Amino acid sequence: MSQARFIYDSTEKNSDLYYATQFRAPDAFIFFEHRGKKYMVMNDLEIDRARKESCAHRVLSINGYVKRAEAAKEKPGQADVIHEILSERKIRSLEVPLSMSFALVDALRKRGYKIEAGPYPFYPERLEKDNEEKRNILVTQLTVFAAIGMARDAIADSKVKNRQLVLRGRPLTSDRLRTMINVFLLERGYVASDTIVSCGAHSIDPHDIGAGPLRPNEPIIVDVFPRSIKTLFYGDATRTFCKGRAPDALKKIYATVKEGQKLGLSMVREGINGRRIHEAILALFEKRGYSTGEKGGRMQGFFHGTGHGLGLDLHEEPVRITHRDYVLKKGNVISVEPGLYYKGIGGVRIEDIVFVTKTGCDVLGRFPKELEI
Amino acid sequence: MSQARFIYDSTEKNSDLYYATQFRAPDAFIFFEHRGKKYMVMNDLEIDRARKESCAHRVLSINGYVKRAEAAKEKPGQADVIHEILSERKIRSLEVPLSMSFALVDALRKRGYKIEAGPYPFYPERLEKDNEEKRNILVTQLTVFAAIGMARDAIADSKVKNRQLVLRGRPLTSDRLRTMINVFLLERGYVASDTIVSCGAHSIDPHDIGAGPLRPNEPIIVDVFPRSIKTLFYGDATRTFCKGRAPDALKKIYATVKEGQKLGLSMVREGINGRRIHEAILALFEKRGYSTGEKGGRMQGFFHGTGHGLGLDLHEEPVRITHRDYVLKKGNVISVEPGLYYKGIGGVRIEDIVFVTKTGCDVLGRFPKELEI
Repeated sequence: MSQARFIYDSTEKNSDLYYATQFRAPDAFIFFEHRGKKYMVMNDLEIDRARKESCAHRVLSINGYVKRAEAAKEKPGQADVIHEILSERKIRSLEVPLSMSFALVDALRKRGYKIEAGPYPFYPERLEKDNEEKRNILVTQLTVFAAIGMARDAIADSKVKNRQLVLRGRPLTSDRLRTMINVFLLERGYVASDTIVSCGAHSIDPHDIGAGPLRPNEPIIVDVFPRSIKTLFYGDATRTFCKGRAPDALKKIYATVKEGQKLGLSMVREGINGRRIHEAILALFEKRGYSTGEKGGRMQGFFHGTGHGLGLDLHEEPVRITHRDYVLKKGNVISVEPGLYYKGIGGVRIEDIVFVTKTGCDVLGRFPKELEI
Repeated sequence: MSQARFIYDSTEKNSDLYYATQFRAPDAFIFFEHRGKKYMVMNDLEIDRARKESCAHRVLSINGYVKRAEAAKEKPGQADVIHEILSERKIRSLEVPLSMSFALVDALRKRGYKIEAGPYPFYPERLEKDNEEKRNILVTQLTVFAAIGMARDAIADSKVKNRQLVLRGRPLTSDRLRTMINVFLLERGYVASDTIVSCGAHSIDPHDIGAGPLRPNEPIIVDVFPRSIKTLFYGDATRTFCKGRAPDALKKIYATVKEGQKLGLSMVREGINGRRIHEAILALFEKRGYSTGEKGGRMQGFFHGTGHGLGLDLHEEPVRITHRDYVLKKGNVISVEPGLYYKGIGGVRIEDIVFVTKTGCDVLGRFPKELEI
């Protein structure tokens, strides 16, 4: 009796599977690690590409196993085919991702397999980025800042007509600027679609991607988080701008968020609990007079996490740095992105990503933090 | 004791959840249907947007449930929070998607819940498109053909230098044409990144997205399958081109694939088993002298499915029309995309998508099927 680590998923939905195989496939396939070797079991469509592109030690054809399963049973299911593969190697016990389909686990248990959940993520080592992974994220992030720079220039170059921004004769709307950013990224090999360009009343909801005209004297949040087509690593950054003079209340929350982000960045280092960073920023905001909670029927203040891990997933452990214990390690890449959101004033968020070191952190890429443009 | 349908997932990974809620969220949330009403349970970050944008009957805050779970137990898990929500409504039995995390199912079962797998997809009615869904797919598909037309023109307008295509003074590579297509789509509100532009030896692997220079007198497969940012519906189409004269062997497989696709399209109607269509095309190819199987160490011939369902997912039931029983229904939208791939000759694939009717099918969008340009 022998144990294996096992994944059945598509690389699009499961970054651990991509991490393990370095192979991209739109459809689910079988992967397992047994006695230090990696196996993929592929259909006719993917087998040759898997042999060429993946880093598996062996790429097996699924055809023989399907035939054997069909010989053993009418209308065999996925578990029956998997049984043919595993029984050949006397594997009776599997460590699988937490996310694995319960229907498949039920069927395998019925066939006598012992199934246990592995860690989350399934390859925890991918949370501690090595130099190459750090560089891949940095390269994405430099393009993120180039895109934010382009967006900043578009806002700066706009004219104001009837309290709306107009660029080269046409209204500069949230949608138009979002498309400009997304096209800029795609031309350079990065995919983004839900880029946030939210102005005024839209900006008080952190996940509102924005709609309608951009206006002067109101906050414009630009939050850009594309994925590299080549490396599959994400970048993520946010800046908040204001075309023309900002109202005093907006200037004040901008300065406070900037101070909160600086505090957060100064606290990041190996060994710190993320919760402490989050609570320190919340306390600073309270001290400056900015409280958090439900007011006037909606959440106001600082009601999202201080940040999240990112890499091959946009949100990976720590998926939310908030009132939850999570001790940072060297090599973690996390965002530090406090924000304040108030009805009547608008929203402000400033976000950078950092690589955690023993004594502090390296901020990946640089871009000015200035409200008025 | 009462039953509910239950999903815990993100709408990005679970189109059924988007279908049920009409809400888009990057992170997982709790959804259930109970006594004919839809509920979402959201954190502070998403609750206001969910109330505004979703079609749920009630959007609940998760905070109270987390507090109760924390009062009942130190370090409560997801299942403990879910228990607080369900016990309030005396729900003891859940129907969940096949794909639900086994770790969460195990934890809920431990708490006494009866959990059963629902159908796949969880909302089977989304496989039978209504008029609005059909129109949404058609609108995407029209843009797919516009992009293919642009790509065709780029190939046609290219000059040939040293057996390579050159457009406006620069080599027209797979990567450059792919980016041109993806940018064209994004400017119109559609996201694609893995668009296939594969030439020559690359074209014999159906999932090779292509690399390097495009060359004359060789097949160039252009397979475009973007998603609408607005409606989230996919389109999908493939054409194969050849710049300049095509070798006779290539012309012959092109004519055969075209004949096979025509046969497939003529067979589609409500009530037919997809397997019959696939096997009829395979038989036609055999009759024309084009066999399928492993030759010279790789798969050759027609070794992928004839098509797949599509809608809010790029591959949905029937996820592969091949030697598997699947009876088509009115309202299914499927691709019909036979291909032939031979070492030395190259690959040819022609793909359209169709809406299945009682007596046949409506092909969505039109684009010429001509090899040489």
